[in-house]
Parts: sequence; C-alpha cells; structure tokens
Amino acid sequence: MTRPIALVTRIDRKGEEDWLALLRERLPAETILPFDAMSDSQRAEAEIAIVANPDPDHVRQLPGLVWIHSLWAGVERLVAELGETAPPIVRLVDPELSRVMAEAVLAWTYYLHRDMPRYLAQQREAVWQQQDYRHPSTVRVGLLGLGELGRASAARLLDAGFQVAGWSRSPKEIEGVETVSGDTGLATLLGTSDIIVCLLPLTAQTRGLLNRATLEKAKPGASLINFGRGPIIVDDDLIALLDEGRLDHAVLDVFATEPLPAEAPFWRHPKVTVLPHISAPTMPETAASIVAGNIESYRATGQLPPVIDVRRGY
Amino acid sequence: MTRPIALVTRIDRKGEEDWLALLRERLPAETILPFDAMSDSQRAEAEIAIVANPDPDHVRQLPGLVWIHSLWAGVERLVAELGETAPPIVRLVDPELSRVMAEAVLAWTYYLHRDMPRYLAQQREAVWQQQDYRHPSTVRVGLLGLGELGRASAARLLDAGFQVAGWSRSPKEIEGVETVSGDTGLATLLGTSDIIVCLLPLTAQTRGLLNRATLEKAKPGASLINFGRGPIIVDDDLIALLDEGRLDHAVLDVFATEPLPAEAPFWRHPKVTVLPHISAPTMPETAASIVAGNIESYRATGQLPPVIDVRRGY
Ligand SMILES: NC(=O)c1ccc[n+]([C@@H]2O[C@H](COP(=O)([O-])OP(=O)(O)OC[C@H]3O[C@@H](n4cnc5c(N)ncnc54)[C@H](OP(=O)(O)O)[C@@H]3O)[C@@H](O)[C@H]2O)c1
Ligand SMILES: NC(=O)c1ccc[n+]([C@@H]2O[C@H](COP(=O)([O-])OP(=O)(O)OC[C@H]3O[C@@H](n4cnc5c(N)ncnc54)[C@H](OP(=O)(O)O)[C@@H]3O)[C@@H](O)[C@H]2O)c1
Repeated sequence: MTRPIALVTRIDRKGEEDWLALLRERLPAETILPFDAMSDSQRAEAEIAIVANPDPDHVRQLPGLVWIHSLWAGVERLVAELGETAPPIVRLVDPELSRVMAEAVLAWTYYLHRDMPRYLAQQREAVWQQQDYRHPSTVRVGLLGLGELGRASAARLLDAGFQVAGWSRSPKEIEGVETVSGDTGLATLLGTSDIIVCLLPLTAQTRGLLNRATLEKAKPGASLINFGRGPIIVDDDLIALLDEGRLDHAVLDVFATEPLPAEAPFWRHPKVTVLPHISAPTMPETAASIVAGNIESYRATGQLPPVIDVRRGY
Repeated sequence: MTRPIALVTRIDRKGEEDWLALLRERLPAETILPFDAMSDSQRAEAEIAIVANPDPDHVRQLPGLVWIHSLWAGVERLVAELGETAPPIVRLVDPELSRVMAEAVLAWTYYLHRDMPRYLAQQREAVWQQQDYRHPSTVRVGLLGLGELGRASAARLLDAGFQVAGWSRSPKEIEGVETVSGDTGLATLLGTSDIIVCLLPLTAQTRGLLNRATLEKAKPGASLINFGRGPIIVDDDLIALLDEGRLDHAVLDVFATEPLPAEAPFWRHPKVTVLPHISAPTMPETAASIVAGNIESYRATGQLPPVIDVRRGY
C-alpha cells in the first residue's frame, strides 16, 4: 500500500471537489484525501501534498511529506508562506497553459500593434482617423522572462513576424530572439522594445522591478503588458509615466490585490486596459493529467520532477 | 517609343504625386503622366491607365486605352462608373496586402475570441469577472469569400488552431477548410460559425446579402466581422439583431458611406466596434512594384495579367 496523498487548498468547496474528482479519476491506485477529511494517522502518513493556495498550517500538520505538487504555475505565495524549511516543491508546468499564455501574448500584442485602444477611444468621440500601419518586422516585442511562458510566447511572436527580444536571469540562446540578461541587459531591452511583455515570476528580485527608474529607460511611447504578477510593477510609477506620455498604454492582467479593488485608479485610467487575471487560466483537465503523470513517474522511479529553488524564489 | 501611361486619380494632390514618384522610379523606361498634365495628343495616345478612384469622364477621354490597372483591390466603383464598355480592368493583387488582411482577421478574431469587448465593458463598470476560456479548436470561424484575402486569412486562422469554414460562389477545395457554396452553403456557414468574417467584394449579388433573413440563420450569439464592403450589410437589420441579442458583437471596418457620418448609430452602439477602414490599407511601396511588374510583363509578352469580369462585378 502506498502512503496517502493530501489535497490541501483554500479554494471554494466546489473547486476542491472538482479537483479531487479529476485527480482520483487519473490516479485510481492512489488514496487522495482532502486535508479536512483526513484522520490524524492519515495526516501523519501522507507522503505527497497536492496544493492550491494551501493554509500553511495545514501543510505543517503533514510531517511525513516527501514533496509538494502545486496545481498552479506561480508559487511565490507558497514559497513565502512555507519558508525554506518546506519539503521540495514541484510547480505545474503545463504545455497547454503555455499555449494559452502565448495566445494571449499574441492577442494583446495585436491589440496594441493594430491600435485597438486608439480606435476604441476614437469611436467614443465619433472620430474617423487612420493610424499608420507598421510592418511587424519593424516592431520589437521585448519579453521579460524566458521561462516556459516566455519561450512559448517568443515562438508565436516570431511566427507572426515581430522582432523579439528577451531578458532572463541566466544567459540564454534562443534562435531568432535577441537575448540579454543582467542590469545592462534590462536597460537594453526596455530601451529598444516597442511592446514590453512581463512574464516574470514574483520573487524578492522581481518585486518592484518595473519602477520609475527602470521604466524611464523604456523607449518613448512604448507599451507594457503585464501577465506575470502585479507587485512586479510599482503602480504609482507606471501611472505617472503614462500620464507624462512617456509610455503609451498598459495592459494589466495581474495586480497586487486581486480582485482589483473598485477604487483602484487603473480601472478608470484611459491608457490602461484591465483584465481580471485571465491571460492563462489553469485548466483542471490538463493540469490534473500532468500532476498524475508526475506522481506516477515518482512511484515508478522514486525520482522527483524538477523542483523549484526556494532561495531563488521560482 | 512606347505609348504613354496615364495616371488618373481623384485622390489628393500629395497622394497622386507620391504614386507618380513611386511608379516612375520603378518604371524608368515608361512615360507616366498625371491626367491633368497630359496634352490632347498624349491623351489620344495613352495605352494604359493606372487608376485610383478615377473620374470616369477622364478615363473616357483616353480613347486609345488597351487596359486599366487599378491601384486598389476593390473595384466595385470602377465597374459601376465605367460600365461594361470599359477596357479590360486589372485590379491590385498584392500578397503583402493579403498578409496584412490575414493579420487583421486574426487580430480581431482574437479580440472576439479572448472576450476583449466584454472585458472593456466590465472595466467601465469596475467589474472583475472571468469569462470562460474556449479552446480555439472548439471555435469555428466562417469566412464569406475565399479569394486572395479569404484564403490568406484561412491559413492564419488554421495555424492559430481555429476551425475554419468558407463560402464562395464557385465550389472550392482548401485543405483544412470546410468549404461550401450557393444559398444552402451560406445557411450552413452562418448557422455553424461562432465568428463570421466577411471578405466579399461588393457586387450586384453581394449588396445587402447580410440582411435580417440571412443573419437570422446565424448561430445564436455569433459575432460578425466585416472587412469586405459596407453595403454588403443591411445596417438596420444588423442593429436589430444585435439589439435582440441574437448576434453578440460586430466589428465593422467598412461602411456604406465613408467616413462614417457622425450621426450613424454604429458609433454609439455598445455591441459594435467601428474601425476607419484600416484592416488592410493599400501600401504604395509594394503596390507600385506589383503594378510595375504587371506593366513590364505586358511590354515583354503583350499578355494582360488576369482581368476582372465586369459582368460578375469582381
Ligand atoms: N496571468 C496569468 O494568468 C499567469 C498564468 C500562469 C503563470 N503566470 C506567471 O508567470 C510566471 C512565469 O511563468 P513560467 O512558467 O514562464 O516560469 P519559469 O519557467 O520559472 O520562468 C521564469 C523566467 O523568469 C526569469 N527570471 C526570474 N527571475 C529573474 C530575475 N530576477 N531577473 C531576470 N529574469 C528572471 C527566469 O530566468 P532564468 O531562465 O534565467 O531562470 C525565467 O526565464 C509565473 O511565475 C506566474 O507568476 C501568470
Ligand atoms: N477593408 C479593407 O481594408 C479592404 C482591403 C482590401 C480589399 N477589401 C475588400 O475585400 C474584397 C475581397 O478581396 P479579394 O482580393 O479576396 O477578392 P477576390 O480574390 O476576387 O475574392 C472574392 C471572393 O468572394 C467570392 N464571391 C464573390 N461573389 C460571391 C457571391 N455572390 N457569392 C459567394 N461568393 C462570392 C468569390 O468567389 P469565387 O472564388 O467563386 O470567385 C471569391 O472567393 C475586395 O473586393 C474589397 O472589396 C477590403
């Protein structure tokens, strides 16, 4: 008999039940139990925790955990709440999620490239005015982050004919992409990109990374898309740069507080498009299959899938 | 000595001068003269007219014309104004124009697919509400017209993972596209498409084609993109169907009267996105090269490029 798997979440009951059903269907040989339904001895025995925004106290009540599998791609909260003493954490890496994110990056890049915010503003004033068309080969999209999501997005953007540049912590080589790293690399990317797309994880290093000092280095008239995490941007600095006309438009899908509070100035800012964290929603069907595959391979080989580096933060 | 080429336009002087410069640069061996600058004997001698919205009387004052090259892709006005007795008409077929149109079709398909009109409306009310994500393989885009623009668009949409259907006058086979023709074909296409994209030319047959009777056959909640010509749609019928909630949204780039008059209801309709005829602007650089190539090949071979069928209207 294998030891039980705990499902630990702070999502609504219906959501947890849906995950449970999907995971049990894909892992019929496993005993998967929601934390609340576990006896003390089951909690003591649990070997793996599958988590979605778990209460950290619940995770600590599972002393025998060998590893944790996150149902989500972003793990900054898990890392912050569990600390460095937590068992190894595996995050969700779902090619279908990357596909949806790359689609979103292309869709909102087109939104900016084909001047949709301007035409929507003109429509409100009944103004008939053609904007100049720019060939995508003259438009540079700069990606902050070249991980699973950044690389999938780069491929779609290249395919659509855009110039693509990308920034990451460690140097990278990606065909067709001008890659940079480090502080000077960031300044180069910001200074040469017409559309900047943030696909970074939230870490101690990336929190507040896009502030007045860095965004002032952006090419005049550049636009920004944030599909990473809200706190990477210093909101007031972004608003000031939009107001000063240095930046043209911002498409924001993620925020320091979500749902974005009704009084937040972003809602009413004419140069901001607010999205309710929809660029790449976790898809339970594919996610459950990936989690199941990782657990099966652990059972077969005793090897963990790639784990996140808690110190690095992603 | 070859006989002169007349440039006949009703566009502004600056626009005509730009075309003239581009055409002369690409056809240095030819004598290209704007109609206004031609002597009577030059008008009598002119063999080819290059036209952009020409005054039909001017064209009639060129009795020796062997053929006419339109600088534009749409020729409904030329056909209507010159009538069936006009010399053979060659229209602009520019792969770069098709690329830009296919890009626009994909961009505004994403606009609808990724629920941008809904999120923009929610932003105005500070509403944080996620819409369900649909995989593109479950979304059918139906193209009305499978000519140069329709086929280029089909390829981009297939590449993006959408289901693609298409309707044309004559039956067609295009890999990956469900093709239909005729009246029953139209009903099938409308009834099964989530997003309907009109890329038809304006002819006696297509004028008013999208009216209450045909649009009532559309799948409930479908959206419409019109990048063809304005009069293909009966405006009041479209507005009624949007108001009744049978159609979800319309993206309109072309109108019966352009610029769209300030009092037109489309400007203020919450379910309509108005664009100022920008989906695929004629690009003088590539267009001039294509016209030049067609004229050079005519000089070399005496053969005309494919001409439009004036009776058919395109
Ligand atoms: N909006 C949404 O719906 C949504 C959905 C899913 C995910 N996300 C967010 O997207 C983030 C990225 O996901 P992913 O799967 O692409 O992550 P990933 O594979 O871990 O990639 C992260 C990338 O960011 C780079 N990076 C990290 N810290 C950096 C720093 N200090 N300076 C420069 N580059 C740095 C990494 O550089 P190296 O390559 O050198 O390591 C890597 O290229 C997630 O963490 C999550 O927050 C948002
Ligand atoms: N909005 C813009 O910026 C813009 C820019 C350029 C062009 N346009 C418009 O786009 C139109 C299409 O351009 P194109 O280059 O693709 O033209 P095209 O190559 O001549 O193709 C026209 C297509 O429409 C089909 N068609 C014509 N009449 C029909 C009818 N009665 N029933 C069913 N199908 C019919 C044709 O069918 P067959 O294949 O059977 O002949 C063909 O597939 C142009 O005429 C122009 O008005 C708009």
